[in-house]
Amino acid sequence: MLKKILVANRGEIAVQIIRAIHDMGITAVAVYSEADKDSLFVKLADETVCIGKGPSDDSYLNMLRIINAANLTGCDAIHPGYGFLSENAQFAELCEKCSLKFIGPNYETISLMGDKSKAREKMNDIGVPVIPGSNGAVSSVLEAEKTAKKIGFPVLLKSAMGGGGKGIRRVDHLEDLKSAFYEAQQESRISYNSDEIYIEKLICNAKHVEMQVLSDNYGNVVYLPERDCSVQRNHQKVIEESPCTAISSKERTYLGSIVSQATKEIGYVNTGTYEFLMDESHNFYFVEMNTRIQVEYTVTEAITGFELIKIQIMIASGEKLPIEQKDVLIRGHALECRLNAEDVERNFSPQPGKITNLFFPIGTLGVRIDSGILEGSTVPPYYDSMLAKIIVSLDSRNDAIDKMTRVLSEASIDGIKTNLEFLKFLINTNEFKDGSFNTNFVEENMDSWRGDQNDKS
Amino acid sequence: MLKKILVANRGEIAVQIIRAIHDMGITAVAVYSEADKDSLFVKLADETVCIGKGPSDDSYLNMLRIINAANLTGCDAIHPGYGFLSENAQFAELCEKCSLKFIGPNYETISLMGDKSKAREKMNDIGVPVIPGSNGAVSSVLEAEKTAKKIGFPVLLKSAMGGGGKGIRRVDHLEDLKSAFYEAQQESRISYNSDEIYIEKLICNAKHVEMQVLSDNYGNVVYLPERDCSVQRNHQKVIEESPCTAISSKERTYLGSIVSQATKEIGYVNTGTYEFLMDESHNFYFVEMNTRIQVEYTVTEAITGFELIKIQIMIASGEKLPIEQKDVLIRGHALECRLNAEDVERNFSPQPGKITNLFFPIGTLGVRIDSGILEGSTVPPYYDSMLAKIIVSLDSRNDAIDKMTRVLSEASIDGIKTNLEFLKFLINTNEFKDGSFNTNFVEENMDSWRGDQNDKS
Repeated sequence: MLKKILVANRGEIAVQIIRAIHDMGITAVAVYSEADKDSLFVKLADETVCIGKGPSDDSYLNMLRIINAANLTGCDAIHPGYGFLSENAQFAELCEKCSLKFIGPNYETISLMGDKSKAREKMNDIGVPVIPGSNGAVSSVLEAEKTAKKIGFPVLLKSAMGGGGKGIRRVDHLEDLKSAFYEAQQESRISYNSDEIYIEKLICNAKHVEMQVLSDNYGNVVYLPERDCSVQRNHQKVIEESPCTAISSKERTYLGSIVSQATKEIGYVNTGTYEFLMDESHNFYFVEMNTRIQVEYTVTEAITGFELIKIQIMIASGEKLPIEQKDVLIRGHALECRLNAEDVERNFSPQPGKITNLFFPIGTLGVRIDSGILEGSTVPPYYDSMLAKIIVSLDSRNDAIDKMTRVLSEASIDGIKTNLEFLKFLINTNEFKDGSFNTNFVEENMDSWRGDQNDKS
Repeated sequence: MLKKILVANRGEIAVQIIRAIHDMGITAVAVYSEADKDSLFVKLADETVCIGKGPSDDSYLNMLRIINAANLTGCDAIHPGYGFLSENAQFAELCEKCSLKFIGPNYETISLMGDKSKAREKMNDIGVPVIPGSNGAVSSVLEAEKTAKKIGFPVLLKSAMGGGGKGIRRVDHLEDLKSAFYEAQQESRISYNSDEIYIEKLICNAKHVEMQVLSDNYGNVVYLPERDCSVQRNHQKVIEESPCTAISSKERTYLGSIVSQATKEIGYVNTGTYEFLMDESHNFYFVEMNTRIQVEYTVTEAITGFELIKIQIMIASGEKLPIEQKDVLIRGHALECRLNAEDVERNFSPQPGKITNLFFPIGTLGVRIDSGILEGSTVPPYYDSMLAKIIVSLDSRNDAIDKMTRVLSEASIDGIKTNLEFLKFLINTNEFKDGSFNTNFVEENMDSWRGDQNDKS
């Protein structure tokens, strides 16, 4: 069993990882930036090392300083959390080379799944359904038209080298394809110095459904109940839940068998999540895999009873998976709302500042609040805007929504703008209540939200 | 369904009742004493009425003021919580007369179960095992000797009129009975102006095991998994858990059928708890029934997933019990530690004062903290010393103990003395860990605790 673990992260996830480490009787080392020196996770760690100034490049993304801190404090492992270096294959490799156990899959797997087009190809090869499209770039408008007709409209034209949203065009009809193709090509040339364009079918009105797996070094794989993470703003999740109301148990078993098989085929070890889009006809399309613990692991913990960070550490320690597929049961329903320091009105722009007053309504059955903040502490401008996760789990989804509404109403945070009211608005829309929402949900409800706010003021 | 409920209580239970009321979309009215004006439960209520000065007699025990507050604010029901007026038949009757629904059983049942000797007789009549003893008072030493020989030593001689612990003698051998009998008689005469003495078998090394029932107006009765509440100081529970490690599922079913039958026989409606002593041979003896929600309902919520205060309100609203016996499953294991403002060294004497600093380690799976306090608030000298309940529930009892240890270590409260360290000590004793503890546990461990404290200082 590991004896001393460095937590290469900050905020709420650093807090929860340190607690998991402590629950297992292991020593926890925190690294922190100067901006985080008064943070809760720093107070909770057994030992702490300051690794640089506020900006991530100077601290939480600085591999060598983190490795040095681990060596200096005599750690035998590093937990990367989510974000920062958690999916950085080079960092995982560096850990291995320095005899530090990286708590996650090996770097080859991270590397494979990190290249989105390679991952798509690999998944296609082993029978996981992927979004229909061209095999690599198309060389001409003619070829583009041929592919588009084959996969059906609407389609997305995408720059093969793109990543920042440039060089993307949505095409609904054949007659619009030609001009869109040239536009995309030109934009791609300007932005990425490449005019390679590929085509993907646009999955309309899709739900984001994902499935987490656990796997050990001995070939044991278990899949966990799916999560519905369709409530997104700017492509970031805001509300997650498990199970997904739109999925049948047959579909769950189908997805489960696909991801279990894929996990075995790629020799994946530790925990990871396969993200899918589900269209209105309940076809599933693999989007990408996250090779780390995700923010929303909490809803899965709530309905399964498994402590997932603890299991990550057990696997990394060389232990066998403590559960089998038959142990995975769904107990009730769990919702998570991400409490962000952001200005909803200004396209969810981050709102750093000092928290002058803070009240979380802890207590009553099924309420869990994972927070990295304290009253009087300052939210630095350098990092993700998420402050805390509010999780409610009860036997009935309706009861969970009612309780979440009450918890969000009771909670208060002063000094900075947050999305507290927006979350309350979202979970009380008809689409959320009846489960019919898809990934357009937040965007489609912005007008109604603004109307709601104007009525109040 | 009820529309507006007055909460006739204070502290953490008032907080949780108000939340349950809000979760159901009902309006909550709080009554409070001047000493509680800045309390959390007052802040959370929709309407509030000050009903008098700090001392309970002037506020939370003042029936007329509470009834008046309910009428003034247009309430249709009163939830009494635990303690104060919750088991006062006169108050329940008064509520009924004033057309206020008392959320609990009817006053006749409260009255019957409130008289401990009548309750014992009733239970004996309907086949619930009670502690063997004399039928009423014994008239002479000879009769006392005859009864004692029949039921077996050790026995307790008790004043039939007693209640404050006077006139009680433990007798281990026949030859000691005569003198003990005269002593008890004399003490009883002085204390209660009665020399009537009765005999009860002393249940040695007993576990306190209790079972809660839920029942509606339509004859539906459900029993919930048993709780082990053997960890007591000064006859008050300190740590509770469910299920009891020493009970087999066969014994659970046996106890369950007994209490369900009794509940039907006495026409009991709402929720109540049958308390038993279990001797070393696993014989059960009825001790008393609590005709209200108990402090430790939380561990039952954790392992069943039922929201018990909500169900109380549903029953009082005339709804059918929302669950059947087959829905009652045991999911994992739950522990509760009562955080008290008390000086462990001075026989657990209450410690009122100002809370200058407060940190509760919310977050991670299975942690629930039901608290009535806030940083900066003052613990008044007038009421029970309990500040908060720390509940941990996980699939494995060992994991729950480890997590509870970590949670107690992380928690901090400054300004007043509490039993935080003592709780941590207790759950890490061998007897607690292996489940072998009985009601002597706290007393027997006081020396070891003091040694532990001296080693640290």
